[in-house]
Amino acid sequence: MSLLEDLVALIGSEHVLTGEEASPYLTDWRNRYTGRCLAVVKPADTEELAEVVKLCQQADAPMVPQGGNTGLCGGATPSNKGDAVIILLSRMNKVLDVDTANDTMTVQAGCILQDVQDAADKAGRLFPLSLGAEGSCTIGGNLATNAGGTQVLRYGNARDLCLGLEVVTAEGDIVNTLKSLRKDNTGYDLRNLFIGSEGTLGIITAATLKLFPKPAAVTTAFLALEGFEQAIKVLNRSKRQFDASLTGFELISDYCLSIVQKHLSHIRIPFPVDTAPWYVLMEISDSEGEDHAREMFERVIGEAFENNEILDAVIAESIQQSNELWHLREAVPLAEAEVGKAIKNDISIPVSKMDEFVRITNAKLQEFMPGIQMSVFGHLGDGNLHYNVCPPDDERKADFLTHQDEIFKIVFDSVHEFDGSISAEHGIGQLKRDILPEYKDENAMWIMRKIKRALDPNSLLNPGKVISSVEINP
Amino acid sequence: MSLLEDLVALIGSEHVLTGEEASPYLTDWRNRYTGRCLAVVKPADTEELAEVVKLCQQADAPMVPQGGNTGLCGGATPSNKGDAVIILLSRMNKVLDVDTANDTMTVQAGCILQDVQDAADKAGRLFPLSLGAEGSCTIGGNLATNAGGTQVLRYGNARDLCLGLEVVTAEGDIVNTLKSLRKDNTGYDLRNLFIGSEGTLGIITAATLKLFPKPAAVTTAFLALEGFEQAIKVLNRSKRQFDASLTGFELISDYCLSIVQKHLSHIRIPFPVDTAPWYVLMEISDSEGEDHAREMFERVIGEAFENNEILDAVIAESIQQSNELWHLREAVPLAEAEVGKAIKNDISIPVSKMDEFVRITNAKLQEFMPGIQMSVFGHLGDGNLHYNVCPPDDERKADFLTHQDEIFKIVFDSVHEFDGSISAEHGIGQLKRDILPEYKDENAMWIMRKIKRALDPNSLLNPGKVISSVEINP
Repeated sequence: MSLLEDLVALIGSEHVLTGEEASPYLTDWRNRYTGRCLAVVKPADTEELAEVVKLCQQADAPMVPQGGNTGLCGGATPSNKGDAVIILLSRMNKVLDVDTANDTMTVQAGCILQDVQDAADKAGRLFPLSLGAEGSCTIGGNLATNAGGTQVLRYGNARDLCLGLEVVTAEGDIVNTLKSLRKDNTGYDLRNLFIGSEGTLGIITAATLKLFPKPAAVTTAFLALEGFEQAIKVLNRSKRQFDASLTGFELISDYCLSIVQKHLSHIRIPFPVDTAPWYVLMEISDSEGEDHAREMFERVIGEAFENNEILDAVIAESIQQSNELWHLREAVPLAEAEVGKAIKNDISIPVSKMDEFVRITNAKLQEFMPGIQMSVFGHLGDGNLHYNVCPPDDERKADFLTHQDEIFKIVFDSVHEFDGSISAEHGIGQLKRDILPEYKDENAMWIMRKIKRALDPNSLLNPGKVISSVEINP
Repeated sequence: MSLLEDLVALIGSEHVLTGEEASPYLTDWRNRYTGRCLAVVKPADTEELAEVVKLCQQADAPMVPQGGNTGLCGGATPSNKGDAVIILLSRMNKVLDVDTANDTMTVQAGCILQDVQDAADKAGRLFPLSLGAEGSCTIGGNLATNAGGTQVLRYGNARDLCLGLEVVTAEGDIVNTLKSLRKDNTGYDLRNLFIGSEGTLGIITAATLKLFPKPAAVTTAFLALEGFEQAIKVLNRSKRQFDASLTGFELISDYCLSIVQKHLSHIRIPFPVDTAPWYVLMEISDSEGEDHAREMFERVIGEAFENNEILDAVIAESIQQSNELWHLREAVPLAEAEVGKAIKNDISIPVSKMDEFVRITNAKLQEFMPGIQMSVFGHLGDGNLHYNVCPPDDERKADFLTHQDEIFKIVFDSVHEFDGSISAEHGIGQLKRDILPEYKDENAMWIMRKIKRALDPNSLLNPGKVISSVEINP
């Protein structure tokens, strides 16, 4: 029998998609990559998924696990060869257990992130992972890529929110370490090895997650600042005075506000856009209540004023005003799209070096193409910037994207010089696979290849993602 | 030349110890294991350490990295063969960098934990890892064993406090991933693989650590509770109302208090020891100040009273009273030693199952040996219990330790049944190496062996620790 026949026999023809039915799964979310496949299969549970893997191993067929297909680096899209089996986790979407006394929940990997959040909410708890794609991305994909989002400052990345995993190996063995323990020092940390490995070392099929108390009040403020130096001073003041209640610290440049004003005029901006070169959206989640949150905010912002750290500030008076401030933040990438195709960077830099990094890299980019416009915003509290390069406002717009490789090189070289990372939260996938070895420690790359070879000797698990070659001495 | 001569030629005879000079490094802290060695070497820096590793590889000599030699599972003690080279990190004890704007510091692995804490403190920051041995253990050892301690509830284990590592591999290559970034999704998580691997996959030579704001006030309370159920209710109430300010939640049984009273009469106990079956030492670290901390404490404890969750409570009026309450907690293991040799367990259990675990396991132990006494205390907030079995108060005391294996089996079988861990924070080392496969997922063990083989093919890095055999199908 052929692999396709074997798969149909195993899980039923209605769960094995080919031809037109398979096509929605062959192109990535940003429309950058399109591949081909033998079939898209939707196993019912972990045991069935493990049998699918065994069949693929026997047939020497590449396997591409896919969650909500919302990744930004082409990590869930197969190659052009047409021999791959896409393993969809969509039927494995159950919340298996919520344990409020232990503040944990156990979910299947195909659970939509929003459903995970909702299940936690219903149980009176918070599952804090939150990102733009939360209505369609899956927790398995979040873990496979170690997703970030807007709550990292307080609660950490996806990695930090996971206590245990169930994983199917390249050989189709089930590794069950679904422990809901906050302390467990019994051998190597396999959980964190699978998290962030983008499906290249194993397929995550279920996870035990941490839950948190819901905050009693969430409040935001919008600050205008004279410079980066001041932003970092306010950040450190806020960390000291709010401690873990500080749940958001988002930087936005004046250029970002100006393009929102120009292209999305329905978005409310609390200041004239020339008030200051930098702005900060700050959020605190308070365990006591609205009054305490507001009182604290007023005290901290007052002291920052007195110390000339901020030029102006608005504290949201209502949930509606808070939401408006977040809409402003979320409008920045939408306004960017109106300006013309931007070359986007998802980088991290030590907070102490960010000011210098931005000045020097901006200058290098201006030198390369005078008139280039910088859309800089992001999670300053995490050291993570969306450092996006927009075309000059003239005829050079048209072929701007043809300069992508040169601009990537300028930015990544500078990131490397400032001890930063070329991928803060989006991962490597196909997009940065070939460039990674230029910036990653050579011996670290070797160890990655050794681990890949040890865990997936036939290189069938999501091949061509993260690492290009498993040869130790290529 | 012999390996010994090569080592002397490389790092100088004054840094190569043999014979009597080597003996302090051959026995573990608890006097359970004594080994032999070819030499104890003290490299000056990472480059020299890497050369030592290369020489050992050439000579096929086992390498045993050692920090402060305070481990509790024999993980830093060589075997009896006498062919091992103990690699001491004691000369690599410098704080390399403190970056307050980024809230990070970079230290060599041989730094004493207390020196790391002090350097953070001098810079106006908190490095929260804290444990009994902090005056002599090293940060490298803390990371190699993923140490826990008293601040895990709020700040996490050693793992959670580390952002980047420098590691020397089994081949003597230096892997430099000393990044001080909170977000970095560029490939497999090697950092967490080395952390907790107890020196069997590589030798940690330096680390970048997270710093935190110092709390404005730290306050403690001591509570008397009718049962486990109430303790968990108070824990959940405290997590909700204090959120991340809750930095300690230590459970202590009435038996623990009674042996402190009997054997360490100078220790102040705030209640008559028959007030309740269970007690909790609670700590909050407040970012606002003493008044706010106290006000919050009174409110939360008041509400717990009204809901019949606690029988009695004392809030510390001063730092001295806080210290006294912590002394009481720390006196429990000292009092245990006075009762007679206890069989100690460092286990974790989901908080929601702890009550039942303790009842059922206590009953099984009583059945095995009527009159046995249970000294139960620990970090309830983390689900981590020191579940120590003390001899009956009669002639059976004398040969109590001869029952260790039987008692381990009763306890570990029960831990396993309740989805717990047989080593919450102390690791595996030699002590639990052979018993680990009985309780760990079989496929997880296989993956551990595959990784060990891939990264240390000649099995020379701390052999005989964590895993007994690297054969995939033994």
